[in-house]
Amino acid sequence: MIPGKGFVRLVEVQKPSLSNNTADAERLEKSLKDEIGTGHIRIPLSVVKTLPSNLRSWGFRAKAVVFRNRESWILIDLLPPESEKALLGAAIDIGTTRIEMALVNLETGIEVGKIGFDNPQALIGADVLTRIHYSAKPGGLEKLNRFVIEAVNQNLASLCQTHGYEKEDIYMVAAAGNTAMTHLFMGIESFEIIKEPYIPCTNIPGTLAAHHLNLEINENALVYLFPNIGSYFGGDLIAGILFSDLDKKEEPCLMVDVGTNAEIVVGSKDFLIACAGAAGPALEGGMSKMGMTAKPGVIDRVWVDPESRDILFHTIEDQKPVGICGSGMIDLAAALFVSGRIDIRGKFSEPVCGRRLIEKEGIKAFILVDKTLSGTGEPIILSQVDLNSLTSSKAAMYTILEVIVKNTAGLEFTDLKKFFVAGTFGSFINPVSAISIGMLPDIPLSTFEVLGNSSLGGAKLLLTSPHAFDRILNIRQSITYIELNVNQEFMNMFSGAKFYPHTDASRFPSIFTPGLPIGDSAE
Amino acid sequence: MIPGKGFVRLVEVQKPSLSNNTADAERLEKSLKDEIGTGHIRIPLSVVKTLPSNLRSWGFRAKAVVFRNRESWILIDLLPPESEKALLGAAIDIGTTRIEMALVNLETGIEVGKIGFDNPQALIGADVLTRIHYSAKPGGLEKLNRFVIEAVNQNLASLCQTHGYEKEDIYMVAAAGNTAMTHLFMGIESFEIIKEPYIPCTNIPGTLAAHHLNLEINENALVYLFPNIGSYFGGDLIAGILFSDLDKKEEPCLMVDVGTNAEIVVGSKDFLIACAGAAGPALEGGMSKMGMTAKPGVIDRVWVDPESRDILFHTIEDQKPVGICGSGMIDLAAALFVSGRIDIRGKFSEPVCGRRLIEKEGIKAFILVDKTLSGTGEPIILSQVDLNSLTSSKAAMYTILEVIVKNTAGLEFTDLKKFFVAGTFGSFINPVSAISIGMLPDIPLSTFEVLGNSSLGGAKLLLTSPHAFDRILNIRQSITYIELNVNQEFMNMFSGAKFYPHTDASRFPSIFTPGLPIGDSAE
Repeated sequence: MIPGKGFVRLVEVQKPSLSNNTADAERLEKSLKDEIGTGHIRIPLSVVKTLPSNLRSWGFRAKAVVFRNRESWILIDLLPPESEKALLGAAIDIGTTRIEMALVNLETGIEVGKIGFDNPQALIGADVLTRIHYSAKPGGLEKLNRFVIEAVNQNLASLCQTHGYEKEDIYMVAAAGNTAMTHLFMGIESFEIIKEPYIPCTNIPGTLAAHHLNLEINENALVYLFPNIGSYFGGDLIAGILFSDLDKKEEPCLMVDVGTNAEIVVGSKDFLIACAGAAGPALEGGMSKMGMTAKPGVIDRVWVDPESRDILFHTIEDQKPVGICGSGMIDLAAALFVSGRIDIRGKFSEPVCGRRLIEKEGIKAFILVDKTLSGTGEPIILSQVDLNSLTSSKAAMYTILEVIVKNTAGLEFTDLKKFFVAGTFGSFINPVSAISIGMLPDIPLSTFEVLGNSSLGGAKLLLTSPHAFDRILNIRQSITYIELNVNQEFMNMFSGAKFYPHTDASRFPSIFTPGLPIGDSAE
Repeated sequence: MIPGKGFVRLVEVQKPSLSNNTADAERLEKSLKDEIGTGHIRIPLSVVKTLPSNLRSWGFRAKAVVFRNRESWILIDLLPPESEKALLGAAIDIGTTRIEMALVNLETGIEVGKIGFDNPQALIGADVLTRIHYSAKPGGLEKLNRFVIEAVNQNLASLCQTHGYEKEDIYMVAAAGNTAMTHLFMGIESFEIIKEPYIPCTNIPGTLAAHHLNLEINENALVYLFPNIGSYFGGDLIAGILFSDLDKKEEPCLMVDVGTNAEIVVGSKDFLIACAGAAGPALEGGMSKMGMTAKPGVIDRVWVDPESRDILFHTIEDQKPVGICGSGMIDLAAALFVSGRIDIRGKFSEPVCGRRLIEKEGIKAFILVDKTLSGTGEPIILSQVDLNSLTSSKAAMYTILEVIVKNTAGLEFTDLKKFFVAGTFGSFINPVSAISIGMLPDIPLSTFEVLGNSSLGGAKLLLTSPHAFDRILNIRQSITYIELNVNQEFMNMFSGAKFYPHTDASRFPSIFTPGLPIGDSAE
């Protein structure tokens, strides 16, 4: 953010005289246009009402809070030039599972508070599909909308209270979510999204009045909703591209957002190709359903002891282990593979596993934690069924990456200058483990960069960067969205990727012969 | 109005398919843009909410109610394509004294009802100045605003009821008034209008939400307020120019609006020069203060009997005479002058008036109606004081016309192809009488055209003519507003015009020698 070039501007309005007796509102409009460099700005009646007395008592200077719409700018409020009133923006990532919000000081661009909470719509259904079906029932849409808006209102209020602000200090909101979540946030009909030919109600909601959305913040506040590309490519991804600067890169980079679905964008300033993994049945529900949610006692890291070749692990808050989370599962699979405990077909090797391998109702399972050491009194195991599911997921991820990077963009993985991993789940993945099992391509570790919640990051960026509106329009226009075509070729590629790390082991030169320790993951 | 090219449009929206899976709102937007030929149209959340189910149940066809703002169009509502719901617009002339409103069917352009009522702000002050002073007192502005808005709401409701409509059928409003009335209608600070350097709060209010103005009509309705040129040249005049087509004329024409003030515009498609008579002290309060308001028994026409050379008159509804109205006064002065009863200096001629001339408290007065024939029991008279006042007014009017037509536009009166007389008062003036006394220039009678309430006419026009928005912007941009400079030259011209018809009688060749009857005024 260039200081003073965000959405708060100091303006000086020409003083009127007999020779310049245009109206106050028109002189203010001219000053704002000059300051912003825009052709049109809308001044609301609420500001016009008291403009003459305000301008005169403020010496024809003012602090203007402005915002953008598609083509034009909108003045939200006008304050005394020396006003020290807090001017805040709220960034919201409307996740299907979790909603995260940040408060940003519009004048400094600094984040002043953050909060996260479960999306209360989960009470109606954990996934998008269930909620959309529910929205078609009488009163269903209104209920889903009320759930999310009330939760946002409550959490914004508590966030403000915690940090010593008023709700009325929030003048603008930037919100990003997938297409369905964006629809439900606005309370607009959503059911066509899931019916062929998969038509959203709107892709470009633009800038709306906060009170039209029943958001209880400043009465003049405006809300920008990130646009969608289509039913399966939402504003959260656009926000992610914005946050990663993918659209500004000189050389090709890739971003993968591993959230409820896996979504991938590859590109640079010259092109953008996107693909949403939800279209691939192998990944349906996939990655994020693996393992349990992070909480004390959950195993989040697993590695092979270089001396003993034992499988070691770490639990959250160093509690007695109670289960294993998704990123822990990937670590575990990698550890089992590099120590030879699972073979290249993804099957447990009895000789190597030894007495750690049991059979339960005819299904083999590896005991990671004995029941005597477990926090639940039950052993913590990885069954062949769990492992098969992980194998499918990692193979699907690799195949989709291959389809988009090689087959579609015509690049090699090594052409990628950056490999951004976004999303809450993605943030915890150890790239070394992911490469070891052939889930991510074997490219230099320095290529990988964890973005965290890139949807929230993009929304925050927008609050202090008027130019982001143009970038978003450009991203929307330049992006090519490909539907994943699950044909015979895909299935062949997928079959190869189900091996550890791959049938074509030459693609993973940095993975040592199975059986050797992987030191990096043991930090 | 070109049928179907107003603010109600039938649109056909492309059906979605797997190959055209853009969102419903975007396909509607495209159809509307194509239909209207605009670059941008705003679609409100209220329409987006139920768009998917509506489009599908209406077979992807719809009736769209649209309106304009400065640069862009706005969709107000979307209805079934075969909807027979009444779609109305309300035109409002916000007069200082009287408010007139008309309901227009937006699909046919036909006026379906009309109502007029006194501006209730008159309870606070009859003139603009008193009201603006009052608006600066605590609560004053709110009260003035409430008065006018409540009266408009009540009268719109009763107008709708009378003609079998609902208030909710009104989707748009076009309102025109002078600068002060427009300000008070919006409830915006108005006091700088009357303080040097006379700065309006806003000159271009544009299109506002009806509910922001507390207008109780359709909840999505929009209100267009005609822009002002400045504190002394309001939207009512712009509406008048629009109504008279002055801005489209091939050759120069003139429009004079004789309302509370006299305002004059001369011009054509090539130029527009305007002048507001309020700046001329001789006309202050002037014309419209003469005589009484029209009601039964009021003398509205006066003429000389060609045979007897008696002064004859007509009263409204043929009741016994109770007084004389403004246009009757002009007729009377003309009749007295052409019959030789007043001389070229505007003084009563004792020999010609005979016993009809009396002296009361040292002031001469002409008895028009003897007390025995009067409806009040008192004689109806015209005193020398009344006559002097009328002489000043008619001289001021002529002088202002001369200044603007000759000195400013560099034209002769005979260059004017049309001389439009607008305003309620102006509607009743007999041009023959006005020429006879030297109030209006001596040009062919066919040149004169009475417009009636041109402010209301312009507002009505706008409701069915989207192109009027562009014309208004052009009028605002091309108009030259001249301040009347009451200098020595003006006073010299004014002195000459105080004679009957003028010191330079050659300017009025069609006025016969005083003493001869003027047949035309007797129908």
